[in-house]
Amino acid sequence: MEVVRVLHMNGGVGDFSYANNSILQLKVISMTRPIVEEAISSLYCSALPTTFTIADLGCSSGPNTLMAVSQLIKTVDNIRRNLCNNPIEYQVFLNDLPGNDFNAIFKALPSFHESFKREMGDDVGPCLFTGVPGSFYGRLFPSRSVHFIHSSYSLHWLSKVPEGLEENKRNIYMAETSPASVLKAYYDQFQTDFSLFLRCRAEELVGGGCMVLTLLGRRSEDPTSKECCYIWELLAMALNDMVSQGIIEEEKLESFNLPKYMPSPTEMSIEIGKEGSFVINRIQVSKVDWNVYNNNDESNELRAGGYNVAKYMRAVAEPILVSHFGEAMMDELFIRYGEIIVDRMAKEKLEFVNITISLTKMK
Amino acid sequence: MEVVRVLHMNGGVGDFSYANNSILQLKVISMTRPIVEEAISSLYCSALPTTFTIADLGCSSGPNTLMAVSQLIKTVDNIRRNLCNNPIEYQVFLNDLPGNDFNAIFKALPSFHESFKREMGDDVGPCLFTGVPGSFYGRLFPSRSVHFIHSSYSLHWLSKVPEGLEENKRNIYMAETSPASVLKAYYDQFQTDFSLFLRCRAEELVGGGCMVLTLLGRRSEDPTSKECCYIWELLAMALNDMVSQGIIEEEKLESFNLPKYMPSPTEMSIEIGKEGSFVINRIQVSKVDWNVYNNNDESNELRAGGYNVAKYMRAVAEPILVSHFGEAMMDELFIRYGEIIVDRMAKEKLEFVNITISLTKMK
Repeated sequence: MEVVRVLHMNGGVGDFSYANNSILQLKVISMTRPIVEEAISSLYCSALPTTFTIADLGCSSGPNTLMAVSQLIKTVDNIRRNLCNNPIEYQVFLNDLPGNDFNAIFKALPSFHESFKREMGDDVGPCLFTGVPGSFYGRLFPSRSVHFIHSSYSLHWLSKVPEGLEENKRNIYMAETSPASVLKAYYDQFQTDFSLFLRCRAEELVGGGCMVLTLLGRRSEDPTSKECCYIWELLAMALNDMVSQGIIEEEKLESFNLPKYMPSPTEMSIEIGKEGSFVINRIQVSKVDWNVYNNNDESNELRAGGYNVAKYMRAVAEPILVSHFGEAMMDELFIRYGEIIVDRMAKEKLEFVNITISLTKMK
Repeated sequence: MEVVRVLHMNGGVGDFSYANNSILQLKVISMTRPIVEEAISSLYCSALPTTFTIADLGCSSGPNTLMAVSQLIKTVDNIRRNLCNNPIEYQVFLNDLPGNDFNAIFKALPSFHESFKREMGDDVGPCLFTGVPGSFYGRLFPSRSVHFIHSSYSLHWLSKVPEGLEENKRNIYMAETSPASVLKAYYDQFQTDFSLFLRCRAEELVGGGCMVLTLLGRRSEDPTSKECCYIWELLAMALNDMVSQGIIEEEKLESFNLPKYMPSPTEMSIEIGKEGSFVINRIQVSKVDWNVYNNNDESNELRAGGYNVAKYMRAVAEPILVSHFGEAMMDELFIRYGEIIVDRMAKEKLEFVNITISLTKMK
């Protein structure tokens, strides 16, 4: 599987599109906003650039894409006005893999500019949007050209499926039953990828530039901890059921593993320390309920909530599953997955763990 | 008609797609390459930047898109090697209106990078591609950030249909029967648009930065000259036939006019002089046969050639015609248009006139 060609959120605006199933990601963006605003505000005040360059890595395509980045611009521009500085230019780099639906973002831009102008008035400089297709595990921007990098819910994707996962059998990610060699292969890939990510960004950021990254992770040092693996174990369960019933071949399942890693804060800090270009301003661990739509636990609500979890997982994982298993069984798979999720959510409160890390590049 | 939302070449890779009907544009890019290469080479040698920023305005989506810009990079990088300078970074801005099929360009990038690397070897810095959706009759890039701007076969599109064309009746562009008020309205719009274009680019280019623009134009100072208007008069003829036969309402045709202007070198020079930021290095007028596929005038070949002209005109004009006349009559219209073109091409040699202009921004 070539992640760079295969991985993208579901495009378009259909029932299973990412655009219509990204409330979880929106909630996480809202939760982490204080850290992002703190970082970008202090950066603006210390650098006072006349062109402020902002990049969003893994921007995807949907209502969150322009919302996230326009919040950043508004934050900076309000401070600029309070300081009575002249209007500045905003250069915005929206990055995602080449399979992302950039056309949809671009078509939304004329309306976005109109409403942005209505809200902000004329006293704002040009906001120049560009799309940057490519893997963030490689260079994306010119050297020393970016002031602020934001990334939410993207960096838990690896550049590829680690090698040496043959013994992971019917798991599709790290699990309690995964042998040590599998855990090591995943951790090695995380180290390789995250250190490359840091090296590239260190080249691209201006001295004193900042980066705020939010990704799925875990508090525990155990990489098979339920807090990060459970959602994927339940997907493996649905796939295994389909193997038992002869719908999916055993070999097909055994050769599938996810290109993901959900690290602990410590694991991230180690790589940041080794790379050496960044100071860590802040690390925050937060939690968000799987059932993001409604926290009411009446059974009907919960049932709908469970299916919604399956739906937003589908918006995220479908392209990568289709590339391995084919399209035909997706409806069936996600119905089963939804049922399993509903069942488990009825029994316990299930949450994702987010790691948010705010970094400054040393001058 | 809102040009910024409506105008784009036909997307996808179908029979009438721009991607499959852009040999004319390719030929023009090849014809004008010496001027482009001269400009970019002397720019590199005088500026010696470590990040070289290139923009292509109206890049469209098809084989020409990446070909045009990769030629520019190869030209610069070969000179760099000959001078034994260190590898430099290339930042490439691909611009077109938001309706352009950027997804198709972006999906072609991974293969492009592979073949580029095979051809150029390892001794080349990162080539960083970004898509910039927006009208070039407005700001696209940060101030003083771009070294070289290229645009081929785009700048003859205006930002909008001029106002005050009510008396243009059954013409769809300037024609011999157009009243003076129509000619003035078109010229005014050209002046407004082209001077705005120049002002924006003057802000965006670094001092000493260059721009090479190729567009459809005319040698004659008469804006209704056959050399620029005839291709559109024939389209108007097909539309008028359909009005006579009751397929199109008269009022519908009378309210349609093209947002285009094909200037003379003098008209362009006047605006460049008024704006005042640029020195004209060179103006070249060239011609290209309508029948770009084959210059053989045997009647079968000519017939095929005529239909091919209708096909490449369709790839360019269909979205804008659909937005006014609807989709239903497009096949019919372009069959009629093809027949008219075949008939005229049998009687005379028909050519487009291109203006290529090379400019340097004063320091």
